[in-house]
Amino acid sequence: MRVPFFELQARATYFQDYLRSQGIDGALLVQRADTLYFSGTAQNVHFYVPKTGRPVVLVYRDFARAQAESSWGAIPLTGLSKIPELIQGSGLPLPQVLGLEFDVLPVAQFERYRKLFPTVALKDISGAIRRQRAVKSAWEIERMQEAAEIYPQVLAYARTILRPGMTELELEGLLEGKARALGNGGYVRMRGFGSEFHFGAVTAGERATIPSSFDGPVVGQGLWPEQPAGASEAEIRTGEPIVVDTVNVVRGYQVDQTRMLAIGDLSEELKKAYALACEIEEILRRALVPGRTTGEVYDEVLTWVKENTPYSENFMGYGPSRVSFVGHGVGLELDELPTISRGAREVLVPGMVIAIEPKFVFPGVGVVGIEDTVVVADADGARFITKAPQEIIFA
Amino acid sequence: MRVPFFELQARATYFQDYLRSQGIDGALLVQRADTLYFSGTAQNVHFYVPKTGRPVVLVYRDFARAQAESSWGAIPLTGLSKIPELIQGSGLPLPQVLGLEFDVLPVAQFERYRKLFPTVALKDISGAIRRQRAVKSAWEIERMQEAAEIYPQVLAYARTILRPGMTELELEGLLEGKARALGNGGYVRMRGFGSEFHFGAVTAGERATIPSSFDGPVVGQGLWPEQPAGASEAEIRTGEPIVVDTVNVVRGYQVDQTRMLAIGDLSEELKKAYALACEIEEILRRALVPGRTTGEVYDEVLTWVKENTPYSENFMGYGPSRVSFVGHGVGLELDELPTISRGAREVLVPGMVIAIEPKFVFPGVGVVGIEDTVVVADADGARFITKAPQEIIFA
Repeated sequence: MRVPFFELQARATYFQDYLRSQGIDGALLVQRADTLYFSGTAQNVHFYVPKTGRPVVLVYRDFARAQAESSWGAIPLTGLSKIPELIQGSGLPLPQVLGLEFDVLPVAQFERYRKLFPTVALKDISGAIRRQRAVKSAWEIERMQEAAEIYPQVLAYARTILRPGMTELELEGLLEGKARALGNGGYVRMRGFGSEFHFGAVTAGERATIPSSFDGPVVGQGLWPEQPAGASEAEIRTGEPIVVDTVNVVRGYQVDQTRMLAIGDLSEELKKAYALACEIEEILRRALVPGRTTGEVYDEVLTWVKENTPYSENFMGYGPSRVSFVGHGVGLELDELPTISRGAREVLVPGMVIAIEPKFVFPGVGVVGIEDTVVVADADGARFITKAPQEIIFA
Repeated sequence: MRVPFFELQARATYFQDYLRSQGIDGALLVQRADTLYFSGTAQNVHFYVPKTGRPVVLVYRDFARAQAESSWGAIPLTGLSKIPELIQGSGLPLPQVLGLEFDVLPVAQFERYRKLFPTVALKDISGAIRRQRAVKSAWEIERMQEAAEIYPQVLAYARTILRPGMTELELEGLLEGKARALGNGGYVRMRGFGSEFHFGAVTAGERATIPSSFDGPVVGQGLWPEQPAGASEAEIRTGEPIVVDTVNVVRGYQVDQTRMLAIGDLSEELKKAYALACEIEEILRRALVPGRTTGEVYDEVLTWVKENTPYSENFMGYGPSRVSFVGHGVGLELDELPTISRGAREVLVPGMVIAIEPKFVFPGVGVVGIEDTVVVADADGARFITKAPQEIIFA
């Protein structure tokens, strides 16, 4: 169950090239998704990457597990103060310029590193790591294809259990339990400070239109102000569009997907809007071509929606709570690069994995839309990682 | 569904006393559990508490929701740079000494505040907030009592579904889905950097004994190295002790509880160890008396285990992966103060809510133990918030 050593070597080598290009002697990584990516273990470790030479995995807890899981080997870490001597003990020089993850590292912990390396210049390397991780290897994409196996089975199960009188929460509980039993890892990693996520949004009717702190077009009302996302305790009514926007994780790799269900029928307008969302998804997928910038693709999609649909005011939210993206990177975390967003200048590269999610929000009525996780490939557009019939499921 | 205004006022007043005692002019809080605690909304807000006067809720997203949810009112925040003028616009002076949450605030965000307040002294107020939040009000304890209603129903359901041939993951999926449908909020907040948690550990036999990065006596093997906690895909065998150690959340308030199940029977030794764990829980509960220190209680329990059981080497883990606590604070977060741990000097105060979890780990065999969430009350010992029959459930 190890991450293959050639994967870890390739990841380290790419990052070491970056370090040398910036005059950084080494980087000390502590954020879980980053240390997992580079070390192959999700145990509590510090990962030290020198600009040349073999990286070192310093393990707080659990040592035996990290040692078994990381092909780099492992060294026990009993306290932060030991880090300099453990680096030197591994035959590596101490850095004069040290990279740290400024975007996530808490101030108090940062101050402890500063005391440990009092004469060392500390630099932020988080942007480089995020850009590197945005481009997935063939091995990583295979893991995401495995994760993509879960959603279609959950959707097929939803078809068998959806019934009048059911609450959003009852539906969510059944789908979440089913996804878990099918091998969904459960915990969803996010990088952004304060980001909170649990399974996804199983939400219907006007509850689906209520915006929240979470930066997405569909969040759900949630159960209380204290957990303002996902299913509510409201009954799903006949004719309400039901959104099943969920994340499945296998071996740490996430895919994000959305399909629609309804009890009874939906209005012709909602069905028309959903057909447009599917059309936009296809336009977006084809526009994700290497060499283009994400902002350019975003503008193109927004222009298409304005010129070809009557719902441009409803696209990706309504009023002040509209979000300014139509897709986001996904991988070990749900909020990866690139974002297909207004003004973004990221250049698309083969291997970038993006959840594209054109959605229309009709205040007081509901949300219709679709979402798939795709990988940037060639001039023909991105390829689907997630798969499931597009048709709305009527129960 | 608002948090009552008298609650919010009492919380702010208590914290303002602290600010004045330390010569701090105001605190700018951004961490979700802290802003929820003080503002009553879990939207994305900055909460500014002046040392005297009315606090200000500055809202990034979603404004309408925050305004409806917080009794303090709400002011839109369109960018960090606006914070000083919004403070002044609320009739408050700009601080000369400003408190921030150094334990969680990322360096990059901290640097932005430093630029916004270039002449201001920045101080860490996270310890004071954690100490304040450790002591719950009557209103908060009522919310935890509501959360405590879920577990006994999940346990009764477990009794009806547990069957030979079931995997840990199948059992977990059913229990998790059931808990959710019964109103468990799902997302579990933790404060510690890198802490990850999903529902809990539904784990049996030797998989339950495998330590992991998570700082607890029972973590579970998990599905893969990438998510090393909770259920595995292994079949639960006859005679293996099954641990159901899960967290339920209502209105943001969590309770933590553990009971045992088994298919067939358990060995006499495991049953004896479990009976001892229940006895230790009672000793621990009675020892949680106002005025005592947590380290003192910890030592007393460890001494009792050493003198009265043959399993002191198995208590709270085995070998190097043993944890050094027997209880932890719980509330809006799972890793609150106080911890009943070696050398801890926190003084017990009525209203502190603690998950006490005496457990024995037998390598290669399994874990037996119990856990309940209790509230420190008076000289008779802490009172149970969680309730469920102690008896092992045999299927």
